[in-house]
Amino acid sequence: MTNHLCNDPLILVNFKTYSEATGKKAITLARTIFEIGNQTGVKVAVAPQCCDIMQIVSEVGVSVYGQHVDSVVPGAYTGHVTAESLKAVGATGTLLNHSERTIKLADILTAILRCRESGLLTVVCAGDVDATAAVSLLMPDMVAIEPPELIGTGRAVSKEKPEVISNSVRRIRAVNQNAKILCGAGISTGDDIYAALQLGAEGFLVASGVVRAPDPARVMSDFCEAANRFCESVK
Amino acid sequence: MTNHLCNDPLILVNFKTYSEATGKKAITLARTIFEIGNQTGVKVAVAPQCCDIMQIVSEVGVSVYGQHVDSVVPGAYTGHVTAESLKAVGATGTLLNHSERTIKLADILTAILRCRESGLLTVVCAGDVDATAAVSLLMPDMVAIEPPELIGTGRAVSKEKPEVISNSVRRIRAVNQNAKILCGAGISTGDDIYAALQLGAEGFLVASGVVRAPDPARVMSDFCEAANRFCESVK
Amino acid sequence: MTNHLCNDPLILVNFKTYSEATGKKAITLARTIFEIGNQTGVKVAVAPQCCDIMQIVSEVGVSVYGQHVDSVVPGAYTGHVTAESLKAVGATGTLLNHSERTIKLADILTAILRCRESGLLTVVCAGDVDATAAVSLLMPDMVAIEPPELIGTGRAVSKEKPEVISNSVRRIRAVNQNAKILCGAGISTGDDIYAALQLGAEGFLVASGVVRAPDPARVMSDFCEAANRFCESVK
Amino acid sequence: MTNHLCNDPLILVNFKTYSEATGKKAITLARTIFEIGNQTGVKVAVAPQCCDIMQIVSEVGVSVYGQHVDSVVPGAYTGHVTAESLKAVGATGTLLNHSERTIKLADILTAILRCRESGLLTVVCAGDVDATAAVSLLMPDMVAIEPPELIGTGRAVSKEKPEVISNSVRRIRAVNQNAKILCGAGISTGDDIYAALQLGAEGFLVASGVVRAPDPARVMSDFCEAANRFCESVK
Repeated sequence: MTNHLCNDPLILVNFKTYSEATGKKAITLARTIFEIGNQTGVKVAVAPQCCDIMQIVSEVGVSVYGQHVDSVVPGAYTGHVTAESLKAVGATGTLLNHSERTIKLADILTAILRCRESGLLTVVCAGDVDATAAVSLLMPDMVAIEPPELIGTGRAVSKEKPEVISNSVRRIRAVNQNAKILCGAGISTGDDIYAALQLGAEGFLVASGVVRAPDPARVMSDFCEAANRFCESVK
Repeated sequence: MTNHLCNDPLILVNFKTYSEATGKKAITLARTIFEIGNQTGVKVAVAPQCCDIMQIVSEVGVSVYGQHVDSVVPGAYTGHVTAESLKAVGATGTLLNHSERTIKLADILTAILRCRESGLLTVVCAGDVDATAAVSLLMPDMVAIEPPELIGTGRAVSKEKPEVISNSVRRIRAVNQNAKILCGAGISTGDDIYAALQLGAEGFLVASGVVRAPDPARVMSDFCEAANRFCESVK
Repeated sequence: MTNHLCNDPLILVNFKTYSEATGKKAITLARTIFEIGNQTGVKVAVAPQCCDIMQIVSEVGVSVYGQHVDSVVPGAYTGHVTAESLKAVGATGTLLNHSERTIKLADILTAILRCRESGLLTVVCAGDVDATAAVSLLMPDMVAIEPPELIGTGRAVSKEKPEVISNSVRRIRAVNQNAKILCGAGISTGDDIYAALQLGAEGFLVASGVVRAPDPARVMSDFCEAANRFCESVK
Repeated sequence: MTNHLCNDPLILVNFKTYSEATGKKAITLARTIFEIGNQTGVKVAVAPQCCDIMQIVSEVGVSVYGQHVDSVVPGAYTGHVTAESLKAVGATGTLLNHSERTIKLADILTAILRCRESGLLTVVCAGDVDATAAVSLLMPDMVAIEPPELIGTGRAVSKEKPEVISNSVRRIRAVNQNAKILCGAGISTGDDIYAALQLGAEGFLVASGVVRAPDPARVMSDFCEAANRFCESVK
């Protein structure tokens, strides 16, 4: 399947719990990503650790996502992260069900509903085509397909398993016309981005490829330029 | 058992995920607590949600604890809370194994070690005498005994189940001479505080009794004055 | 939606961990259910606790389902229940993701695949319409919709929330033509069965309505006769 | 620390979910172990998967342990394993908190109490000296120390980390005089058994060293003879 549409691609950088993206370093990295987004006109966002969200929101201005939200309501739930709490510090949305923080099906659904009530966008992750189609039925704002075996490897899903992207796009669109479709796992060059957009991806969940790169700014530029090149090509 | 020592009692207020203690309201409440601590000379601290820690640290100056820490190291652990992350935003310590966020025994131990490496104090919670003695063997800085059936009820552990406090103190001291012993559950008046100190408690984990009180400042004052009254009485 | 098809309805009795259905009592109850199935010609099955499966298989002859299967393979997984283990003692299939034993989305998918390899049928449970549609995309042999708030109440889903059944049927059939659609929660009379079949259900997951009834045989007879009455009516 | 007591050593063989010890093969292996126990006069027991317990109890006669028990009571707990259920099929006891099936501290305590009520012995596992001492405070019948990094390696804890055994014995005995102290991880020869008994172990939790051995009978004989040799030496 070749994609003939430029659907305003989003590049969302997951900071995980990398020491390169914790505390003050999270602020610096978020600023770098925000500036490259501004320079290239590509939509970018970051997903830092909870503790770092507020300062990035207030000092940087980039869109900030949580990495996880619990399905509980405000109340006596010590140690949980509520949608309300993320919203109160200015988050735009949150990841849910990342392969490093998988949750129960019922909790995915409840968390989506709770985020919607709180005004947070949801990016529900899944690891294969069937699961991605299944979560797209729960009406998240975005879904992200990431084969776990490629995460952190530098071997890009769009090169190693292109059929995972094209099949996910086909299966998701059969049941959900609206959710933005992200992909991730091993994305480390502009070529990986370009190839994924051709396969139908509309955005990206990236992590170590940017966060642990010797020069994150160069990698982000490479990513954003590839996205622009693709959008130019399908005009 | 009657306590004849004033061991610099700590009053640690757990904000849970109460809407009364989220976002801007968390800052305001933390400031109130800090000021009453200063006025009375009693040691106070707060345990807000992750997202609110940084701002409370930077704007208020009160000691801030996390409500939970995962046992993972920095790295590819999306959606987890690391000791490093809490430390980076200025936390003093963290709760662990609260009855609303219980964790595996092996994770309690790992989290204690990870917090020690990161320079965070640990307050390990448990729900009964046996479990409290058991966790005190893992060498946390503090333990907190809270019978879960009294949490949030306004019926204080020091009145309803005084033997839980005195037995915990005895059982803990048989195996650990150093851990500060907190208690909690239902604490809502200065009398509850005074009674618990007489039973051997050295500090308090309180939550709804302060957070959801019509006038949190008045309750905190009541608590701190009771602590001072007790310390005066055993001089 | 009115159902005009008799699709060989299955009545599957979940023994949960009820003391009325443990050990020797599990054997007796399974025998009762099997005999009524034989007398009425209605397809019945039981889902006892693990420990009781082998004896029911060998002594009774009724189809036996597990209540849960872990997604692990044979190997160093102490304390887990594998598909191979259930198959080895003669189970026909298993429940998955029951509201009292919910599992992660990724584990539902893996468990379905592992059961298929082992020759076990899968009945994947979910608690609402969206989640039921989502799990039906994972290609289980059967799905079971059970609103958790009605489980164990004696207020039948087919009377209290008929739209949950009809909407589930419609949503499931939009994405999966093959999975047998069971429903459950509060089913306690033949009328509940009849109403659900009219709404499009093709089978039933029942529990306390039979297990804890003063006279389980009478209730099962009532259920089976209602199923026959419905099938007669749509011939 | 050198042990001068023969405290009726127990050799408990954990079948895990190994295919070599599932279904009919579980019965055969249990029979082999039982016979060698009888021949040598050494106390032996097996911990097969749930589904296989009943048949081993009824056909073999060896003491049978579960691999895990949930802390729930009989009732609406689909997919859980209750102490009552294990007891009903004739189990003698159960493992708890094995490193492959770790549970929350509160659940260890509840499960111990529930097993005691049901007449099941408990063997609580832990992975290091501190955790082993902690669980021994919960008054289980036995504790088992197994460094997880040695499990399944064939490199015996008694050779690779003898201090783990001797320190555990010392730390446990400081707080619990009664619990039988087992050790495990990598035990694969009679020499490993002998060395561990000298270090103060009173029994063994073994698994792959027997289950996956080319000749399990020969290994069990080797183990039992070593135990007898030790007991002879300290008379």
